[in-house]
Amino acid sequence: MPELTLAAAAEALRTRQLSPVELTGSVLARLDEVEPRLNAYAAVAAEQARKSAREAEREIAAGHYRGPLHGIPFGLKDLIDAEGLPIAAGSRVRAGHRAAADSAVAARLRAAGAVLVGKTHTHEFGYGLITPQTVNARDAGRVAGGSSGGSAVAVAAGTALFALGTDTGGSIRVPAALNGVAGLKPTYGLLSRRGVVPLSWSLDHVGPLARTVEDIAIVLSGLTSSTVDEAGVAGLRVGVPRNYYFERVHPEVETAVLAAVDRLASLGARPVEVEIPMTRYVQAIQWGLMVSEATAYHEPTLRTSAELYAPDVRLLLEAGKVVSATDYLRARRARTLFRREWLRLLEDVDLIAAPTVPMTAVPIGQETVTWPDGVEESVSDAYVRLSAPANLAGVPSLTVPVGRDSAGLPIGMQLLGRPHGEAVLLGAGHAYEVTSRAG
Amino acid sequence: MPELTLAAAAEALRTRQLSPVELTGSVLARLDEVEPRLNAYAAVAAEQARKSAREAEREIAAGHYRGPLHGIPFGLKDLIDAEGLPIAAGSRVRAGHRAAADSAVAARLRAAGAVLVGKTHTHEFGYGLITPQTVNARDAGRVAGGSSGGSAVAVAAGTALFALGTDTGGSIRVPAALNGVAGLKPTYGLLSRRGVVPLSWSLDHVGPLARTVEDIAIVLSGLTSSTVDEAGVAGLRVGVPRNYYFERVHPEVETAVLAAVDRLASLGARPVEVEIPMTRYVQAIQWGLMVSEATAYHEPTLRTSAELYAPDVRLLLEAGKVVSATDYLRARRARTLFRREWLRLLEDVDLIAAPTVPMTAVPIGQETVTWPDGVEESVSDAYVRLSAPANLAGVPSLTVPVGRDSAGLPIGMQLLGRPHGEAVLLGAGHAYEVTSRAG
Repeated sequence: MPELTLAAAAEALRTRQLSPVELTGSVLARLDEVEPRLNAYAAVAAEQARKSAREAEREIAAGHYRGPLHGIPFGLKDLIDAEGLPIAAGSRVRAGHRAAADSAVAARLRAAGAVLVGKTHTHEFGYGLITPQTVNARDAGRVAGGSSGGSAVAVAAGTALFALGTDTGGSIRVPAALNGVAGLKPTYGLLSRRGVVPLSWSLDHVGPLARTVEDIAIVLSGLTSSTVDEAGVAGLRVGVPRNYYFERVHPEVETAVLAAVDRLASLGARPVEVEIPMTRYVQAIQWGLMVSEATAYHEPTLRTSAELYAPDVRLLLEAGKVVSATDYLRARRARTLFRREWLRLLEDVDLIAAPTVPMTAVPIGQETVTWPDGVEESVSDAYVRLSAPANLAGVPSLTVPVGRDSAGLPIGMQLLGRPHGEAVLLGAGHAYEVTSRAG
Repeated sequence: MPELTLAAAAEALRTRQLSPVELTGSVLARLDEVEPRLNAYAAVAAEQARKSAREAEREIAAGHYRGPLHGIPFGLKDLIDAEGLPIAAGSRVRAGHRAAADSAVAARLRAAGAVLVGKTHTHEFGYGLITPQTVNARDAGRVAGGSSGGSAVAVAAGTALFALGTDTGGSIRVPAALNGVAGLKPTYGLLSRRGVVPLSWSLDHVGPLARTVEDIAIVLSGLTSSTVDEAGVAGLRVGVPRNYYFERVHPEVETAVLAAVDRLASLGARPVEVEIPMTRYVQAIQWGLMVSEATAYHEPTLRTSAELYAPDVRLLLEAGKVVSATDYLRARRARTLFRREWLRLLEDVDLIAAPTVPMTAVPIGQETVTWPDGVEESVSDAYVRLSAPANLAGVPSLTVPVGRDSAGLPIGMQLLGRPHGEAVLLGAGHAYEVTSRAG
């Protein structure tokens, strides 16, 4: 039963073919079975979940069906507050902390009747692409990706029907792609970050992960109270980047993404070659903003308890101290130009299709990757390279599973769209996944 | 005739008792007479002004009266672009530059039929409180104040009926107060800064200087296309600060401002003691933002032509290089809190009355002031101390002349209000000035 999609589960709950108690019970049973191996959760609230499920059962039985999230078990990244539950942010700095109130998104999901299973592991304070506490849901010898690694693994493993994550440079989409699930970084500002631990406030986004694009659409509707119009893909101009997004990308990833674009074309989309602007500034802008803002947030704790951070995160935080205000402001001003150029690009096409990450999940412990041109890149830099532009531009980006490589590891394609153009991305992604399942 | 207020001149122009050509001619004659002594203008566009005046004359004669700015001679601070006119920003760095297009505010004023007399001197790039090119309009041995010194002197001397300035920490209000004219720093963002050389974009404001509050209201209406409702002062709660604004203030300034508050009370206002929040952070926030943003803007020029800046400005710009991104971000975050506290304070009162500057115009060359408690303060720090909080909070602040000290030098009172509460300030200021003239 945990293999049910959210859409299928919701339909079964609505028509009372499935009871919320039964569904939550089966997810918790699955959790008992796989968590010893996966460790996707930082904290499980089994009793609270069972109680919420019983309430949902009573309400639905009494005819008070709240909508498609009612009775659906979900996970929350451990950067997102849920009242009374631990909020450790993956860090010894916050060990033992509990949230005094719900974040805006948690309150929204509870009001929709969703059943919170627990808090999913994050790379410490969201500041990394690995999430070392957990492992890839498809291959326990491989990384889960991050920083929303626990959310992606829980969804992939069936210990949540959906989960929320956060994304500053790719932290929803990278683990979603590496674990073979869908994930959406929405338009900047679309979902409230009240009650969410910041990493870099000018780049941070909250968004959903789920097994299918259709499920993502359901969660987004529940969070925004808007109807997500799935318009399909016929007639859409799909930009295919001639630069940047297919450079230093593994051949199997490139092949799978281009095959997915062909599939979209066979559904009526019109592929158009596009030139991605200002690509040489991506890393400088991303780092200039993120490193400065993260250190500004953590500075008081660094002064008193620097030794509590993991070495990788502490190094990044200390590095932030030497960035000058003028470097930071140069990054902010460049970002304004960057965003403007992207909006201009998106006047010419309805969406852009590209790999989400340049390679599939690496073995745990691998720190660098060497590309055929001889360039060596850190695994983290490689994982964030193709996802960061959407954070800088503030545009929505949806990752969709598009098959596996020869090792059986999932490959992700991202669809990027105009600000508040989530419906277009979800429509195209859903059209793809429907034919994909049929084929 | 240059002693006419804008309101009186507008009425005479509208009723054709005065011709625009005559008015501009008389302002230019006055200019010929006083400029050798005052040097308020960086560039005078006499022929262009006469031409505009002739056009206004033709239009008004033909029955096309555009409104109360039609045919009114005005000055523009030399940080504000006017098409075809020099824009040197008070600096050798920009010597010989001409603006390719009008700034948003200049375009607005031209469309309203106002007659541009010329560009008024600014402290180099707006980065100082003196404007050394000019002298005080009331005493040529005293400073004009800055950075909009030329605008204040021109208005006070009758070589413009109004002028625009910019204000980052007090640069409209300080020279207005020192020269005995009115000046408004509007709500942050109210007037467009397109085509205005920035000093510190998170603190910069454009605003008018004029001889009376009534005239300020006319200019603001012309710039915003809104009607400024002058509601008077009866029933308003006027906050009188018990801390900060009357500390280290010259006794004659204090006496004059408190007498002005009494006058407001006699008109029906209700004085209320208020506690000003977060005063110990004013200087740190102001400097953290301004020094960083100014250096970020000037960095490319500093690399190539640092020697062209005046020593005082160059020192400030070089100092900005050593500010860290975390210091800058701490200032930004503190500013958010600061603004929140001020908005809370302004829930309890309708406006706040305080000295604009703690002392009148100092003799040229005086660099410090020593207060009775033995504290020595730089003249610039003293002049900016009471005006900067309105820039941090983003709230409007209007300075109104409230008499003279025993040396005959003008004293200013500032009225601070809620965001977009300009009408309240202008109403109260106008009620004050009307009774002041009558008395």
